[in-house]
Amino acid sequence: MKAAVVVSSGFAEAGNKAGEAELRAVAARHRIRIVGPNCAGIINTANGLTPTLETLPPRGRVAIISQSGALAGVLLGWAKRDGLGVSKFVSYGNRADVNEVDLLEYLADDVETGVIAVYVETVSDGRAFMEAAARCSEVKPVVVIKAGRGESGQRATLSHTGSLAGSDAVYDAAFRQCGAIRVESAEEMFDLCRAFAGMKQPQGKRVAIVTNSGGPSILAADRAEAVGLAVAEPCEAAREKLAAFLPAHAALKNPIDLTVEATERGYRETLNVLLATAVAEETASFDSAPLRSGCSEPSVSSVAKEYHAAVAINIAPPYLDSLPIARGIADAAHATEKPVAASFLPEEVTADAVAYLQENGVLDFPTPERAVVAMANMARWSVDARGQAWAIGRRWRRPIAHASGAARTPPLPPAPILEPDAMLFLSACGIETPVFMTAATEDEAPLAAACVGFPCVMKVVSPDILHKSERGGVVVGIHNEADALVAFRAIRRKAGDVAFSGVVVYPQIRGAQEVLIGVARDPQFGPVVAVGLGGIYTELLRDVALRVALVDEEEALEMVRSLKGYGILAGARGRPPCDLEALARMVARVSELPFLYPEIAEIDLNPVFVSSAGAVAGDARIITG
Amino acid sequence: MKAAVVVSSGFAEAGNKAGEAELRAVAARHRIRIVGPNCAGIINTANGLTPTLETLPPRGRVAIISQSGALAGVLLGWAKRDGLGVSKFVSYGNRADVNEVDLLEYLADDVETGVIAVYVETVSDGRAFMEAAARCSEVKPVVVIKAGRGESGQRATLSHTGSLAGSDAVYDAAFRQCGAIRVESAEEMFDLCRAFAGMKQPQGKRVAIVTNSGGPSILAADRAEAVGLAVAEPCEAAREKLAAFLPAHAALKNPIDLTVEATERGYRETLNVLLATAVAEETASFDSAPLRSGCSEPSVSSVAKEYHAAVAINIAPPYLDSLPIARGIADAAHATEKPVAASFLPEEVTADAVAYLQENGVLDFPTPERAVVAMANMARWSVDARGQAWAIGRRWRRPIAHASGAARTPPLPPAPILEPDAMLFLSACGIETPVFMTAATEDEAPLAAACVGFPCVMKVVSPDILHKSERGGVVVGIHNEADALVAFRAIRRKAGDVAFSGVVVYPQIRGAQEVLIGVARDPQFGPVVAVGLGGIYTELLRDVALRVALVDEEEALEMVRSLKGYGILAGARGRPPCDLEALARMVARVSELPFLYPEIAEIDLNPVFVSSAGAVAGDARIITG
Repeated sequence: MKAAVVVSSGFAEAGNKAGEAELRAVAARHRIRIVGPNCAGIINTANGLTPTLETLPPRGRVAIISQSGALAGVLLGWAKRDGLGVSKFVSYGNRADVNEVDLLEYLADDVETGVIAVYVETVSDGRAFMEAAARCSEVKPVVVIKAGRGESGQRATLSHTGSLAGSDAVYDAAFRQCGAIRVESAEEMFDLCRAFAGMKQPQGKRVAIVTNSGGPSILAADRAEAVGLAVAEPCEAAREKLAAFLPAHAALKNPIDLTVEATERGYRETLNVLLATAVAEETASFDSAPLRSGCSEPSVSSVAKEYHAAVAINIAPPYLDSLPIARGIADAAHATEKPVAASFLPEEVTADAVAYLQENGVLDFPTPERAVVAMANMARWSVDARGQAWAIGRRWRRPIAHASGAARTPPLPPAPILEPDAMLFLSACGIETPVFMTAATEDEAPLAAACVGFPCVMKVVSPDILHKSERGGVVVGIHNEADALVAFRAIRRKAGDVAFSGVVVYPQIRGAQEVLIGVARDPQFGPVVAVGLGGIYTELLRDVALRVALVDEEEALEMVRSLKGYGILAGARGRPPCDLEALARMVARVSELPFLYPEIAEIDLNPVFVSSAGAVAGDARIITG
Repeated sequence: MKAAVVVSSGFAEAGNKAGEAELRAVAARHRIRIVGPNCAGIINTANGLTPTLETLPPRGRVAIISQSGALAGVLLGWAKRDGLGVSKFVSYGNRADVNEVDLLEYLADDVETGVIAVYVETVSDGRAFMEAAARCSEVKPVVVIKAGRGESGQRATLSHTGSLAGSDAVYDAAFRQCGAIRVESAEEMFDLCRAFAGMKQPQGKRVAIVTNSGGPSILAADRAEAVGLAVAEPCEAAREKLAAFLPAHAALKNPIDLTVEATERGYRETLNVLLATAVAEETASFDSAPLRSGCSEPSVSSVAKEYHAAVAINIAPPYLDSLPIARGIADAAHATEKPVAASFLPEEVTADAVAYLQENGVLDFPTPERAVVAMANMARWSVDARGQAWAIGRRWRRPIAHASGAARTPPLPPAPILEPDAMLFLSACGIETPVFMTAATEDEAPLAAACVGFPCVMKVVSPDILHKSERGGVVVGIHNEADALVAFRAIRRKAGDVAFSGVVVYPQIRGAQEVLIGVARDPQFGPVVAVGLGGIYTELLRDVALRVALVDEEEALEMVRSLKGYGILAGARGRPPCDLEALARMVARVSELPFLYPEIAEIDLNPVFVSSAGAVAGDARIITG
């Protein structure tokens, strides 16, 4: 016996850790691999091995691996109902032996599997999971549900990067970085697996919607825009072709409404024209906005762009025969290399036509919205995962070996690391820091200020004061030596009885944007790096980009660009744009430090001053342990 | 003949406006009320009047009125499939005569109707719609889909309030103000109508989830939190009661997982205990966050709070008989005044049990997520629409008569209104403005500055310069008369050849937060009022609260509290809190002006400086026309 599926519960999940350890020990002694315990079994549709009590689905290309047996059971039930073919099913339960990483590694090379659906509540080893998922994603899509978003990560103020560790945001970043497509519900996962298994792959985000009714198609278009598809308008040439055979009152804008008089030929030819010709010139003006075209201007770009996909909607009144419409759509779908999804409603009226679609290899979705969401998720994979994410280098996959030339030269100061020591250390690590002076006495303070230059800023140095501003430990706008003395006395007095290690004096930096950069250690994924707009905006608006570390400069730049407040850094309202390369360099460099210094638990540079002249750390906190 | 339903198309929607005018004229001549043309007909299930070709649903309490015949057809198909009873159905098409306002007014008093579902793409008269919907909402829920969100409102930068007019955001505000519940899809609308028609009304947002499987219930809890329900933990007393009959390994936290061994008695007793006893002390610390409780601490509040609703999930493996579970849930649902929703999956395995639930008046939803979304939407109605929104006074309903005492005393200056004139006018209207001086020449500038006091700010006055900063027309930090002269010359030079009407000099205000307040006229809803965090943050982060004007101070305060950046105003990080009452007073007062001055098209106060000392307009732009 080489393997066992242990369906029984009553092990670690019920507090019986000793029982599970014994199971593992027995298996190890006899070299038996175990799936479970506390699982719903496994299915291999290719060889008929089905040690499970769950519903048996038809054979096909979708593999399902799930930490929850019940969730998988729902997917299997739907697969049987809708004829979605499954290659392998594994409910791995308590993963006493075989875990999600083993399964992903197996499925990456499994030729019977073309799509992988993964349900996890936790992963046992974050980086191993990312590595295995990335291997899969290179050749087949990985669709992931991570349940248990929890509230802590979303609730916590982002005053320091450590508050992000362990949060759902880290899973979110990790999935994106390894090319997995995260979805929210079993329904969305099922739709997307059906789409990947049964539809051609869209090569971009522009979708044409063809319909015989206004309302449902407008809702589909709204949803399409909301999930990142571009409901682009057809170009003038396409509209001329459509006008040649469509009735005069059919609206030649996207969605194309053929009205209730729509015919087999109308659907077929409209889809043919739209998928063969171009969309109108792009007119969207925001880099961060999803693509969208407008054709209100008669002038059309010479570099016309194509539609990448179509969704055909048929809302049938009871007196209408939908079979011809199904034929028209199926014909058009066969004539193109682009995906065509259908949605026919209501079910009762369109059952025959939906059966025809299924027989002819066109996917019908329960609602138009579900069709566009599946299409958008597919497009995300082709555009984001296979394009952008892959190009960006995946620094997290090889963190140590490729760490930058400036290796572990400076020694880490002993804990607790005071701000001046942290600044010196970071400077030696290649992080840009300002000139600064320290002062321990009233005599030294004015001299330190003069040395740094006016106007300057004075801050308390104390191992016991975490929030300097709130303790009155920061004085800005020091314009002369007399100011400096007053400031020192005020800070000394406010410090009261706590340990007082003097003050640190920096030149006052004006006209720069404040940014936060930080690293922390996530319990599952190890070092993570964050960058966001600093100060109270980070805390209140939570505009922070997070990645599993380390990242290179290119990925750091992409993090900065993904911020909602990116425009503030890029030069909104005629301000000079900040030196984003310098900022990205600092993010990338900071992300290396937890690998070079295993004793570093957390670093926060808050604020970092970024201007057109560069990026410089304005405060630093390093926590070890 | 008193009424006609004109199903035929080929009228205004096809460009034939003359035909529609003729139809209207004939109807008026003979005093015939018309539904349509270009509609899908009407249904009255009470008297069997069914001039329609759509599916006939069973009789019941839900009224459906729809601008789209197709969308309504989908709802009718589902109603027939799931046995959802309908009172009236009206597809009003081109609304040549009878429109959505007439229908809402009728349905408000229709005793056969308990829930109203409305699909609109546009409304013909925004305020009349709000008035009618508000009348309905006082006695029965109104569920609205507004299709065609469009992109303009979401895309446009919010540099001025006018860019919000005509946007989807105005519909959103209007629906909230009249107590209508906006949903996004036909599915969500159908679920919510089923819930209102077939379930008790939750009196709050705390929901208990009882399940026999981990995965799907965790996803349901995630979704519940995301849509604003509170997945509160049971209190110690409830846990003790549960522990008395549940197996030791059942987790006594919410969701309560009875495991696959769950029994009829387990579901019944668990629901009984949870719906009869209290939840643990609230531990959430953010005012803006949805309610949520934690029971990790052994201490429990003496002021325990109750659950308001329960969702019972049963994910059945094929070997499990779900009928006992259905019985347990139905028994518990009958024993309480609180709503209990069910979700049984997969369909094939649980069909008998679902039929039992239906026969016994317990709603089963296709997925646990759809159950919690429907529950959350119901709770929104009970908590927001019936509580908060109603209490807030509905100033939009009686704008002129109740306008504040300071009526139309000051005359509006002739257009174009320059900044100093706008400031004087607003000041006379009771809006707080700073002391300021104007200067037209090099001689006057230093004197004006000295008069205002240093440091001060100088701005160009020109009918041709809209964006003063971008044109170099603003100089801050003027510390003496020499500075003032330099500033005047620089501004004069930068103005170049455009009309130059001198400069305006204000005292420089420090330490205040910048806010934007504006009014504009929406084509459907008339005057709207907006308040947001000012400057580039408004544009980039789009953190703006919008209402149909006018609003009173209480509602204005609620607008301010709804901002994402509210914490910045309320005193984040130990800053002194701003005078929010002064800000609310200004918002309320500005919202009256478009009613008092019909010639005002738009007012923007940007920035308004808000500090603990009050709120003062820092710049003003009034556009007439």
